[in-house]
This record gives sequence, structure tokens and C-alpha cells, in this order.
Amino acid sequence: MVVTLHPAADRESVVRALTARGLTVAFVAADADGVRIVLAPHSAAVAVSDIAKIEGVRSVAAPASAHPKIDAQGPVVDVRGVRISSDAPVAMCGPCSVESERQIRAIAKTLGNLGVSFLRGGAFKPRTSPYAFQGHGAQALAWMKSAADEHGLRVVTEVLSERDVDAVAEHADLLQVGSRNMQNFALLKAVARAGKPVMLKRAMSATIEEWLLAGEYLLVHGAGGVVFCERGIRGFDPATRNLLDLGAVALLSQVHRLPVVVDPSHAAGRRDLVPALARAGLAAGAAGVMIETHDDPGRALSDGAQAIPLSGMAELMESLGARRRAA
Amino acid sequence: MVVTLHPAADRESVVRALTARGLTVAFVAADADGVRIVLAPHSAAVAVSDIAKIEGVRSVAAPASAHPKIDAQGPVVDVRGVRISSDAPVAMCGPCSVESERQIRAIAKTLGNLGVSFLRGGAFKPRTSPYAFQGHGAQALAWMKSAADEHGLRVVTEVLSERDVDAVAEHADLLQVGSRNMQNFALLKAVARAGKPVMLKRAMSATIEEWLLAGEYLLVHGAGGVVFCERGIRGFDPATRNLLDLGAVALLSQVHRLPVVVDPSHAAGRRDLVPALARAGLAAGAAGVMIETHDDPGRALSDGAQAIPLSGMAELMESLGARRRAA
Amino acid sequence: MVVTLHPAADRESVVRALTARGLTVAFVAADADGVRIVLAPHSAAVAVSDIAKIEGVRSVAAPASAHPKIDAQGPVVDVRGVRISSDAPVAMCGPCSVESERQIRAIAKTLGNLGVSFLRGGAFKPRTSPYAFQGHGAQALAWMKSAADEHGLRVVTEVLSERDVDAVAEHADLLQVGSRNMQNFALLKAVARAGKPVMLKRAMSATIEEWLLAGEYLLVHGAGGVVFCERGIRGFDPATRNLLDLGAVALLSQVHRLPVVVDPSHAAGRRDLVPALARAGLAAGAAGVMIETHDDPGRALSDGAQAIPLSGMAELMESLGARRRAA
Amino acid sequence: MVVTLHPAADRESVVRALTARGLTVAFVAADADGVRIVLAPHSAAVAVSDIAKIEGVRSVAAPASAHPKIDAQGPVVDVRGVRISSDAPVAMCGPCSVESERQIRAIAKTLGNLGVSFLRGGAFKPRTSPYAFQGHGAQALAWMKSAADEHGLRVVTEVLSERDVDAVAEHADLLQVGSRNMQNFALLKAVARAGKPVMLKRAMSATIEEWLLAGEYLLVHGAGGVVFCERGIRGFDPATRNLLDLGAVALLSQVHRLPVVVDPSHAAGRRDLVPALARAGLAAGAAGVMIETHDDPGRALSDGAQAIPLSGMAELMESLGARRRAA
Repeated sequence: MVVTLHPAADRESVVRALTARGLTVAFVAADADGVRIVLAPHSAAVAVSDIAKIEGVRSVAAPASAHPKIDAQGPVVDVRGVRISSDAPVAMCGPCSVESERQIRAIAKTLGNLGVSFLRGGAFKPRTSPYAFQGHGAQALAWMKSAADEHGLRVVTEVLSERDVDAVAEHADLLQVGSRNMQNFALLKAVARAGKPVMLKRAMSATIEEWLLAGEYLLVHGAGGVVFCERGIRGFDPATRNLLDLGAVALLSQVHRLPVVVDPSHAAGRRDLVPALARAGLAAGAAGVMIETHDDPGRALSDGAQAIPLSGMAELMESLGARRRAA
Repeated sequence: MVVTLHPAADRESVVRALTARGLTVAFVAADADGVRIVLAPHSAAVAVSDIAKIEGVRSVAAPASAHPKIDAQGPVVDVRGVRISSDAPVAMCGPCSVESERQIRAIAKTLGNLGVSFLRGGAFKPRTSPYAFQGHGAQALAWMKSAADEHGLRVVTEVLSERDVDAVAEHADLLQVGSRNMQNFALLKAVARAGKPVMLKRAMSATIEEWLLAGEYLLVHGAGGVVFCERGIRGFDPATRNLLDLGAVALLSQVHRLPVVVDPSHAAGRRDLVPALARAGLAAGAAGVMIETHDDPGRALSDGAQAIPLSGMAELMESLGARRRAA
Repeated sequence: MVVTLHPAADRESVVRALTARGLTVAFVAADADGVRIVLAPHSAAVAVSDIAKIEGVRSVAAPASAHPKIDAQGPVVDVRGVRISSDAPVAMCGPCSVESERQIRAIAKTLGNLGVSFLRGGAFKPRTSPYAFQGHGAQALAWMKSAADEHGLRVVTEVLSERDVDAVAEHADLLQVGSRNMQNFALLKAVARAGKPVMLKRAMSATIEEWLLAGEYLLVHGAGGVVFCERGIRGFDPATRNLLDLGAVALLSQVHRLPVVVDPSHAAGRRDLVPALARAGLAAGAAGVMIETHDDPGRALSDGAQAIPLSGMAELMESLGARRRAA
Repeated sequence: MVVTLHPAADRESVVRALTARGLTVAFVAADADGVRIVLAPHSAAVAVSDIAKIEGVRSVAAPASAHPKIDAQGPVVDVRGVRISSDAPVAMCGPCSVESERQIRAIAKTLGNLGVSFLRGGAFKPRTSPYAFQGHGAQALAWMKSAADEHGLRVVTEVLSERDVDAVAEHADLLQVGSRNMQNFALLKAVARAGKPVMLKRAMSATIEEWLLAGEYLLVHGAGGVVFCERGIRGFDPATRNLLDLGAVALLSQVHRLPVVVDPSHAAGRRDLVPALARAGLAAGAAGVMIETHDDPGRALSDGAQAIPLSGMAELMESLGARRRAA
């Protein structure tokens, strides 16, 4: 934003008024025409009209938003009757990979009794190594859908390929785009065209603006709403697998008024930190938490070390529930 | 950690047992002598004896900790009668810089009535530019001490120079080492020798191990306890000034059992995100929050855009208080 | 790697021998069975047999490589008769986007006279914003192919969608997978099946191991060779758009013996740094440089600020040529 | 920079003219008074007067530099008769720590015969662990000075403490401030007051602007010139210890016209990448390279894995020499 002052204005007093509004001045510079104050990039919802009223301000030039459809979406996304919103955060739980029909049914049954709204599970798995288990594919979609239906859960699962969009859209209520595909624009367009709501995970090192613009792709091409998901960005410390950016969550939730889910399982990469980070995510304004659980983590085909044992989910949901009610 | 198996052991079953304990296998490799499983770096408190009991495990080699004194410290640091611990998180509030005697007395009075335990304020300021206000120095220490005493507050303030340690130690209850000095080993030694408790801010891109080792320097050289402070690390997104790493807070608090304070003001760099990040920090297990406030943020000599107006502190403390009581 | 010592071995002397070979010891730990030395992750080609010969070493356990096909590929990839190898680095030049038939013909003509081997140009453009120019698509492929053929150039261009692989493979000699798609595993598989050589750009924050594993996907699924391309990773400094990681280039080129091209245009994001970074890339061992040029940078439909004017390419190629001959 | 247009100006044509000059437009915005074009942060030496001449531009507001003394310093720093400048890059070599008088004399003798200009060596060592070897202190300074004098070398060594400035200034020609102390403002002031030239290493995650401002501190407080040193910033890949930022080197050297030395030893953390990164640093415009060497790397008291054996220095200097002459 560029704020131009009246010739007679007191520069210091305008800077004070801007700072008092929580804005940061990037620099002040003068030319023949007057003094310009340029504000630091700031995703705040500070109204231009409010700045224009400051004594000494002659005019304010603000760039148009690059993502008007996302700005207009609002803080609630409805997924087949379940509202995703920070007013009443939801839980999305399930195994990293759907490993068998028996497994997903057992998990769905337990979760259904705990107030969980979404069953998550990988049918198509993005794996760093070509030799790792790649998921049970279409078969797993059907298992998950049937297990979820039986227990009143919605289904959220990842789409990896443009070719799989139809199959996933047939079984899932919320289509997930994973962090490795946040800027796979061909996939974003294909997923959007299915017309369903989409959960968009943040890429490993995406800026918030890039994330919002990826969401804009989805809305421009027809998605029925965008839920954002923060799952940790690339950090430098091996003690935690990723770096959960709750500043981004607070910003999306409280300034942009958008629904954002927190995934503490992938952020931490280790089970013992999941409950604390789930609680912190909700405290920062998340509209939900996505948590991996497994009936036998030692035998998990992927990410067992970060899975909460199914037997421990009741206690975890209870601890989160208190916080969800208090949110 | 290196886990060596019995010749007849079932490798898969040992890996499952390790994963079930939340441990991540870095790699498995065999030599003439048997199979070795190397675990990924993991700051967990998983007992070697517990791993040794897994069927098929012949021996476990674990490196000694590099910071035995920090490991032995425990989760509570007493600062002249105030316990810093995640059991009952404290609030440390005050202006970025101590600007006048009048100002700090007014702020101390308000904070004293709100249940705040520590008065913070900069006497010696680390400023990126040599032309920026560098603090009122020794004079400000006396003002702060007197204001704090009058309202039953403890004083926490930063030491910038080896030469100032005595003056700061005379007036402060808790000596702060700033993030830019986390690995200023000459300062760490000088501060430690004062014998008082020290609050050690994490450097902009320090690993947790480097942070713990800096704490070890303090204890080796005589500090009366170390409180850690997470204030956000260097990120890549201009929308938030720094990246608050609550995974590190959860790890220090819940796995290492050390007291860690969260500073949402410097993390966010913008006022509107401070309350959400303060709440998230407490939810992650912080032993306290450090929050900048100012009686007139527009006139602040430094960091006004991130200061909570003094008039808004009652509401903020109330919102945190509920969470502190519930912690 | 885990090095186990003989009971009577002198631990210090073994550590010295390892260090003398340039290896870094992560930790030393003992169990009932003896002393283990675990080496830090190190992509070095240090032979296990060489370590086993150190006096005092009983056995060495080294994990199998996770990317055997990439390890076996070798340092040269042949692209329709042009060898990409650090022995005689190639130049890949052209506009960010192919904007018209006229433009690409003019550029190809100039480049063909300067010793450039590859014509680059975007037909399908990955754009952060859905409202930005997305490329002229299939039409641009034909323009580029024809212009390249006329001047003896090879074609390298990016594939964005699984659905475009056939069209791109028909016109391009080297198929480029962009940084945003490095872990788009569906695309990697589809591109690989075309059987042609692929240039794989590193993702914004990919580790070298993740990059090599993405290359492994390509070879497992049939690609006719993998050329890596370092184009800068996500940094925190707005003065340069990305952070060119020439340590990674040196590692791939000199330790892994793989061909890696450097893209200084995207790394710098600003024209004035391109020549210096191109020279530095070659000095670090690159097998080529990819440089954006435009006949009229001010009118470029994308990335004009980083394009070298076509009129300046002769001088740039001359300065690189000296270095390429000296490499 | 804020560019304001004439009411009748063609906005697109001005943007083209700016882009043609290699500038990046951050955003364009209009207010009642006209159209403003804000340029992205860009450390370029683009003259305001040149922009003002573009047709359609009414005025240009550019912020004053925050580091006028650094801007005015120029590209050459004289260290007791040795000019540090990218025109004729120097070599600074020696052991990580000065371990004995005998060692440093042997090393100085070899280096003196190889065209090396500076003897480097640690007397006071910043060590991550309080239990690691901390250097031989004042004694080592004297050993180094005497060895350097005997072979016509200058001495560069690090100051860790305000209390050691006098002792170091007595023996060293160039005082080094390490990366952990780049923003230790008390040390910067104390070192500057000694009046000698200073080599300022970049902090692990400092922006270029922060680095220049730390240099400004030195000049404001009396330093006899500032040489910058890039030694790698914090990265996320364990395969290389740090991330050598040669974009920053190119920027400082070619745009800011300041002398900057590259330290490939600390950047790589492994010997096998040092020669390639040293060559790349020189190609990017460095005014020198700082390289660790040891007569017996396996016995080095610190950082042995990155030290080039003294016996290999002739070959390395030869390979760099060709490049230094060609620079």
C-alpha cells in the first residue's frame, strides 16, 4: 500500500497513526510530488478507507487482491452437511494408508463413536521412494466409503493423478490435494472440475500468498469450496519432521477468515508431540484437526511412528473436545 | 541409537516393535556380525532398557547426552519465589523499550493488577541499524526495578554486553540472552557467572540441540537455572515476521521436561496475531508467555506495530487466564 | 554407516582414520558387544571395503542405496546425439514462454550461431496465478520444434499434465519436469513411459535424497536417462528470488557422478546476477546452463526482469565459453 | 521505490520500460492522484534519474539507504599492504584451530610458498558444546603472528569476546567476527574501535540487508574497512553442512561493489566439495577464498573432516590460481 501525504502533513504523526493501527512501515520516501509511505507486505484486513481518514493523508493506493474468489469465499465450507469452520472444529481421523477392508471398518467404528466427523485414509499414496507401498487404489476407495457410510462419517482422501479424479470424486466427500501437488496446476484444474469441496494442503515451502493463489485456481475452475490444511513446512531440525506454522493458521483463520485444518501428525512425524500440537492448532484458530491413527501402529504400512494407537483415540478426542467446546 | 539383533531374530518384528514405540528407523544394515538398526535422531525419552527388552534385540548402543546438566535441571525454575513451569504458566509483559520512568510505572501498575508476574522491558536494545534507538541503558534498569518492586513484579531484561552483566544482574531477577546472542559464548559465560536464572532465547535458525547446548554453557558456568524462550525462527514469508516453532516448544516441554516461554510478539511481528499465538503456545505446553504492550503503540520507539495497547491487556490476560487455569 | 570396533581397538585412532578420510562421526556409543561408531549422513562414495581395512575395525554395516538405478546411470546422458556431461557443458537457452512463431524463429537463429545446443521455451506454463498467461500450448510446441530443427538445436520444454505427455514427447528431445512437479509422482510415471530423456528440476525445498529418489521413479518407469537441474531453492531474502545451491551441484556432479544443469535465471530472478551465477555453476561442475533470453525483455509475457536481452547473448556465451573450454 | 505516472501515461509501456531495465514490479495501484508502481525490493544500483527519464513517469520516490557508510566504502580493502578485491582474489588458509607453535610454523611455511596471502587459525574458538576444545587463546595469537611474519603472511583470526579485542588487534591484521556474532552489537562496537579492518562473516540466516547493516555498525564505530565473508547459511539437507549462497556473493560483489570472501570449508563441512565450491565462489565474484588446511586432518582438534591435507594444498592453489588469474 502506498500512502501519499498532504504537503503540510506531519510525517511523524502519520507514521504514528499507521503504527497504532498495527501496520508496519516499509519505507518513507519523498519525491517532487510529496511524501510517500510504503507499508510492509501485510495480509491484514485494514480498510483503505480507514487509512484515508488519518489526518495528513492525501491518498491511498492499494493493489487489488490477486485472489478475489478466495477472499469472497467465507469462513465455512459445507461438506455434505458437515460445516468446516473454526466455530466448531471437526476431527478428521484414520490410517495413513487404507490397508484392508477389515482394518478400515474397525477404525471407522471406533471413530464414529468418538465424535469424529471425517474418516481419512490413503488409497493412492504419494511415496518418496518408487519402491514403497503405493496404496490399494480404487479398491481402498470403496472400502473407505462403505465403512464411513456405516458409521455416519464423511470421507476425505487424496487424489494423486488427473486420471483418478472421477474415481475419487465418486467415493470422497472432500477431495484432498497433497502438499507435493499444491502447485500441480493440471491436477488443481482437474480436481476443481469435479465440483466438490477440496482440502488443499500447503506445499513444503509455499508462501501464504502462493497457497491462496492455488486455492484461487480451485475456485476459478469450479471447486465447491476450499478448505486449507497446514501440515508443517520444511524445517532444518531433524528432531521434528516438519515445522508446523501456526502463524499461518492464525492468519488464515483470523485475518483472512478462511477455514484451515491442522495436521499435527505429519508436522511432528512423531506420536508423542501430536496431542500438544493438535491442541495448539485449535487454540490458533483451526477449523479442524487431521490425525493419523492405526489399530496396530507397529504394523502400519506407512508412517507408523506418528500414528496414535486406536486405543488411545478416546483420550485424545476427550482432551481436544474440551478445547473444541471452549474454542 | 544402534540396535543390534540376535542372529536368529526376525528383523521385521523388531522394526515393528520399535515403530510401535513411536521410534523411526533411519536404516537397517547388516555386516558379518549381524543386523544393525539405526534409529533416526529423536529427542525422545525412550529408555534404552525398554528397547533392550524387545525380543530379538541383542544389544543397544546409545550415545551419551551432550548436555547432562540441562537434562538434570528439571521442569521448574524458581525466580525469586516465582516458579516458572508449565503447570502454572506465567505472563511476562511490558514495553519493547523502557522509554521513561513515567511510562514504565504506569505500565507496571496496570500489569500488577492483571496477574502478570514479570515486568519486561528493554534497557539495552539490540537494533539491526546503528542509527536506531539503542535504549536508555543503566537508567532504564533502575526505573524498571523500582516500578516492578512497587507492584510486586519480577524483572526480566536483556543483557547485550559482557560489560553490562553486573549492572543488569543488580536490577533484574531473570537475565535475558537474546536470540542474536544465543551462541555468543563469551556473553553466555559472563551472564552465567552472575549466578542468577537466565532466560535464553532461541537463535533465528538454531537447532534444538544447539539451543540445549547453549543452555549447557549457562549451567556449566554457574547460572541459577535456564528458562528457554521460543520467539520464532527465520521464515520465508513476509506476511509473518518470524515462524513460531511450537513443535520445539512441545518437545522441550513434554519430552525434555524443561520450562519454555513463548514470545508471540516477536514471532508474529504484528499485533493482530499475538493473542492466537499466545493461546497456541500455552496449549503446546509453554511455561509462560512474553507479550509486548505499550501505553501508546503509535509512539513506541521500537516495534509499535506488534505491541498490544495497554488498554487491551485486561481482555487478553482474561482470555489467556482461562487457558492457563485449564492447562 | 555403523562401524563396529574390535574389543581391543583404540577408539581414538579409528576416529582419526575416519576423519582423515573426510568422514564425520555422528556419535560413538558402546554396548555389551563393543564400540559402535555411527557416521553422519554423507553422500560420499567412500568404499565400505576401505573403511573395513582400518586397524581396529571389526565390521562395517552400510545401508543399501535407495536409488540403485540412478546410482548406475553414469555421468553422461545422450539427447539425440548431444551429450550432456560436465566434461563439455552445454547451453540451453530461449524465452521463458514461446510467444509467437516469429519470435522463436528469430531467437533460434541467433542461438544457433552462438554454439547453444538446446532451445528452451515454455509451451505449457506453470503460473502461480490462475489469471496469468498459461502458455500457447500445443501450437507453441510445433513452432519451437520447427525453429530448432532449422538451426540444429535440440528442444527442451516442460510437461505440466499427464494428458500432454504424448504431445510434448512428439516435439521435444528432452522432457522437463518442473520444480513444482518434482514429487508429482503421477506425472513422473507418465513422463517416464514416453521413454525419452528427462530433465528433472529440484523442488523448492527438496533434499538431495528426495531429488535422487524422484529420478529413480523416472528410471524405474522407463525414462531414457535423467538430467538433474538446480534452479534455486526457497530462501528468505527478497534480494534474490531463490537460493542457488551449488553445494548440491558439486555433490551430484563430483560425488554421485550425475549430470546436473544449473538454471541461474530462475535462481536469481534478476538479470544482473545471471552471468556470475552461470559461471559459478560451471565452476561447481555443472553439465550445462539453462538461461532465459528474450528479444525484447520489456515485452516478455513472463519473467522479463530475469531475461538476458538476445542482443547480449553473444557476449555472455563468449564469457561462459572460455569457462566451458577450461572446465 | 515508488514510481508515480503522469495522468495520461500508458501504464503498460512504463511497466515494460522498468522490466527492460531488469526491475521487478511488486504491484501497480491507483488512487485519486494517479497510478503508482511499486518495485520489488531489489538491491540494484539502478539510478533514480534513469527511471525518472522513462516516458510517462512523473516522479520517483526512493528510500534513502540504511547503510550510507558501507555504500561509500568501495570494492577494495587494504590490509597492511595486501589489497582485498575481486580484481585479484586472495587466499586465506590455515588450520581451524592453532594447535601448537610447531604446527602453525609448518603450515605457514608451506602456505607462504604457494602464494597464499593470509594465515588463518583459531585462537579463541566458538564451540557449540561447552565441553569441546575452546582454543589455545592468547598464546596461539603469538604463535600465529610469529609464523606469519616469518613467511610474509598477514594474520586473520576471530575475536570472540569484547575483553579479547586488544589482544587480538595486537597480533592480527584482519579481525574476524564470526557468524554467531554477526549481530553481537557490543562486540561489533568493541572490534570497530580497534580501528583495524574487519572481516564480517554472515550469520546463519541473516538477510543481506542485515549483513550490510552489521557492516555499517563497524564503520560507524571506527573500523578500518569491512570485508564480508559468506560461509554458508542454514539449510535443511544433512548432505552438506551449510548452504553456500553465491547469489549473495554475486550481489555484494557485482551490484554493491563490496569485497566478499567465500569460505567453502564451513559451507560444505566436507573436504571433497571444497575445491569445487572455492572455484565457484571465485567465478561468482569473490575477492578471496578462506580454506581450512591441516598437516594431519585425522588429528585435528576441530573440523578435521573438512580440512584439506596440507600436502594437497599445492594442487588446490594451482587449480584456483588459474581461475584467479582468469577472473
